[in-house]
Amino acid sequence: MAEQKKLVAEITSMEEDFAQWYTDVVIKAGLIAYSNIKGFMVYKPAGYAIWEAVQKHLDARFKATGVENVYLPMVIPENLLNQEKDLVEGFAPEVAWVTHGGQEELTERICVRPTSETLFSDFYKDEVHSYRDLPKVYNQWCSVVRWEKETRPFLRSREFMWQEGHTVHATAEEAQERTEQMLNVYADFCAEDLAIPTIKGQKTEKEKFAGAIATYTIEALMHDGRALQSGTSHNFGSDFAKAYGIQFTDKDNKLKYAYQTSWGLSTRIIGALIMVHGDNSGLVLPPKIAPTQITIIPIQQRKAGVLEKAREIADLLKDFRVKVDETDKSPGFKFAEQEMHGIPLRVEIGPRDIAENKCIIVRRDTREKISCSIDELPEKVAAILPQMQQDMYDRAKAHLEANTFAAPDKETFVSHFENQLGFVKAMWCGCRECEEKIKEEYGVTSRCIPFKQEKIADTCVYCGKPATKMVYWGKAY
Amino acid sequence: MAEQKKLVAEITSMEEDFAQWYTDVVIKAGLIAYSNIKGFMVYKPAGYAIWEAVQKHLDARFKATGVENVYLPMVIPENLLNQEKDLVEGFAPEVAWVTHGGQEELTERICVRPTSETLFSDFYKDEVHSYRDLPKVYNQWCSVVRWEKETRPFLRSREFMWQEGHTVHATAEEAQERTEQMLNVYADFCAEDLAIPTIKGQKTEKEKFAGAIATYTIEALMHDGRALQSGTSHNFGSDFAKAYGIQFTDKDNKLKYAYQTSWGLSTRIIGALIMVHGDNSGLVLPPKIAPTQITIIPIQQRKAGVLEKAREIADLLKDFRVKVDETDKSPGFKFAEQEMHGIPLRVEIGPRDIAENKCIIVRRDTREKISCSIDELPEKVAAILPQMQQDMYDRAKAHLEANTFAAPDKETFVSHFENQLGFVKAMWCGCRECEEKIKEEYGVTSRCIPFKQEKIADTCVYCGKPATKMVYWGKAY
Repeated sequence: MAEQKKLVAEITSMEEDFAQWYTDVVIKAGLIAYSNIKGFMVYKPAGYAIWEAVQKHLDARFKATGVENVYLPMVIPENLLNQEKDLVEGFAPEVAWVTHGGQEELTERICVRPTSETLFSDFYKDEVHSYRDLPKVYNQWCSVVRWEKETRPFLRSREFMWQEGHTVHATAEEAQERTEQMLNVYADFCAEDLAIPTIKGQKTEKEKFAGAIATYTIEALMHDGRALQSGTSHNFGSDFAKAYGIQFTDKDNKLKYAYQTSWGLSTRIIGALIMVHGDNSGLVLPPKIAPTQITIIPIQQRKAGVLEKAREIADLLKDFRVKVDETDKSPGFKFAEQEMHGIPLRVEIGPRDIAENKCIIVRRDTREKISCSIDELPEKVAAILPQMQQDMYDRAKAHLEANTFAAPDKETFVSHFENQLGFVKAMWCGCRECEEKIKEEYGVTSRCIPFKQEKIADTCVYCGKPATKMVYWGKAY
Repeated sequence: MAEQKKLVAEITSMEEDFAQWYTDVVIKAGLIAYSNIKGFMVYKPAGYAIWEAVQKHLDARFKATGVENVYLPMVIPENLLNQEKDLVEGFAPEVAWVTHGGQEELTERICVRPTSETLFSDFYKDEVHSYRDLPKVYNQWCSVVRWEKETRPFLRSREFMWQEGHTVHATAEEAQERTEQMLNVYADFCAEDLAIPTIKGQKTEKEKFAGAIATYTIEALMHDGRALQSGTSHNFGSDFAKAYGIQFTDKDNKLKYAYQTSWGLSTRIIGALIMVHGDNSGLVLPPKIAPTQITIIPIQQRKAGVLEKAREIADLLKDFRVKVDETDKSPGFKFAEQEMHGIPLRVEIGPRDIAENKCIIVRRDTREKISCSIDELPEKVAAILPQMQQDMYDRAKAHLEANTFAAPDKETFVSHFENQLGFVKAMWCGCRECEEKIKEEYGVTSRCIPFKQEKIADTCVYCGKPATKMVYWGKAY
């Protein structure tokens, strides 16, 4: 057990230094390596496998709503980017510019896409002519580049992977429906596949995406009480269509501008998985998306029959994602590794167990040890995995609720953030100035205007004027 | 049927102008749209769906051999690229250079990856220390940029999607085994999933990848008799390891350089699918990788019960990838569309068929019409699809064989290429000069030194000196 202790001891405890705990988990669980190019990361097999699982589940949910995947160029000419001024104001300061192709200087510089609204709009203007061409519900899986100054694995890096959906519709109503539908897809995916509860709501004017008429968000709460914007969905109305000339002849034979949406979820969701479920032994992955669900660890594996039985058990469990750890490390070391990597279950099998035709199942989240006859193992595992998925969600939900507070007045609001983090629900008059003052004075931002409104008080928590909305406030990643 | 004729007539026949036929198919089948950025393409849903199917099948084959997926940065600093001179000589003239990040000029310019040997080597040097860290068998799915002057959809573009596998091994033998293993994976994938027969062999010194000690290739033959290099696998020996410092302590406690391989297959394989299987009505997709396998086309769909029956049939066939074409186009137009898109089977169902509880199955490749009772439909389809897959392979194989010729002497060789294309097998002395002269004088290149050697003659087809190897020659895309 000495080795196990040593391995576990290498992670800083989250109570001591949450940021260092996060970095330790990312590195020790083998998710990421820093590349030698500032701000760019290497996704190692364990990290990329989580992203593959995210893609698989989310893509299936997309396709069930009629989404089709496409792939557009990774570069955008400067002039195309400039056609939409609101957007370029947001991104121009942070794009990577290509100025030379081969030996020649380009006549017009092009940037690596920071996002692809401009490219999709330029594409759609040639594809959409009639109401019969609508809707177009396209998505692409790709990576984008934003020249960030400060970077952290998964949360912020100069290149990150994501999906970006871009749709075109004949009516404003249909665009609004699609915007909300995709936000619900994200929220359901987070809740059901990642066991992460989120708050659904609308961004304020100040926090919305440049160029959108409305931005919707799902906000999750991390272990340390900070918020993480986990997916966004934008309704563009016909602003992009007007800037790029996306017009169609409607059923009434009139030429009209189309309506657009976009929605994205990125690798930062892996940061959420780590910070919602992880503990001081490392990652804890929800069974549904864990690339490996069960590690079988033979005890005294050199003894006759032990490895064979371990493989036999793997075969029994072949309906699950299962691996046998046959390396020559000690069992204690293997336990620590399985915990570090967040594999939901481990099955321990040694000579004594074999003699009794049983084995031990250990849950990663609770460390509960369950003795089980080998014959009943598949049935038992089939029951434990969904239970663990549900328990993980319930705990995350309880944490979210325990760390959400109501502040009817400024005093409560201020004293809360002086002492702790979490979500604070407070009333707002709707004016941008109050929102800016709150950020300036207390260092917290509006996370969203939740769909589920409550009446905490009658007046704005900052200015005291009549309130129009309840807002979630917090410190965010 | 007027509309059908019109639609089909829009494709140039391949006998008339093969290049135009190819472009017509690519555009009319909705695979690609030209973007407004020179040399960059948009993969539309039908085109991207084929790439998704390629990824799914090939990735499963990779993982069955122990491959793990990773993701490395999309950019390479100039100095890193320069560490391997042989490689940079190959790619520096055709990379896209990023010189500015946001508002600032970079102190060192970086290029968008044209391939990632340098990045993987730089990564591996920090990851590999002991024989226990080996082998590393990593792959990434990504897009790369090469600043090509002439571009054609799928065959050559400034950005293309591919997978690039990069492995590190403790011994030269293991690296060689992995190089050949992956070539076999490509060949099996082409034969079994894409119904494309290929010639397996080694590239000559002149044609091999810069920096590799040996490059292996699979070469396919298109309808027009041109060759297409469809996948390559490289053995780097320890050259990259020496350039980048990838060393490990072996079991004997000695510090050694590692051995590396890389292997890639790109979206140009979609070009092969089009040019091996397509006909004058459009695409013909092999059932295994066709995104949609069956289109159900209701005849007189406004009549009571027809659409309902079509949907009922779709439900009967739900184990296959099936769609009902419920649009308000005429049946003839729908037939033409199904043919253009290369959907393997269509099922026609009209009022008369319904009365007799039967339907008509039409095979895309042979246009054979098969009458079938509705009850037997799932069984019948389950038999036809693999038969069609096999028949498509057999026809492609027969075409390859019928267009492969032996040239024992220069006269036969020259007169062959004066009159037609195809593969020509001829003997070679092994000297680079003869190879260069053949290219210069006859405009054909060595495709590969096939694993299956034959003795066509005793002497080199060009210089008449004793021959060492038989080579496949041809004109290539």
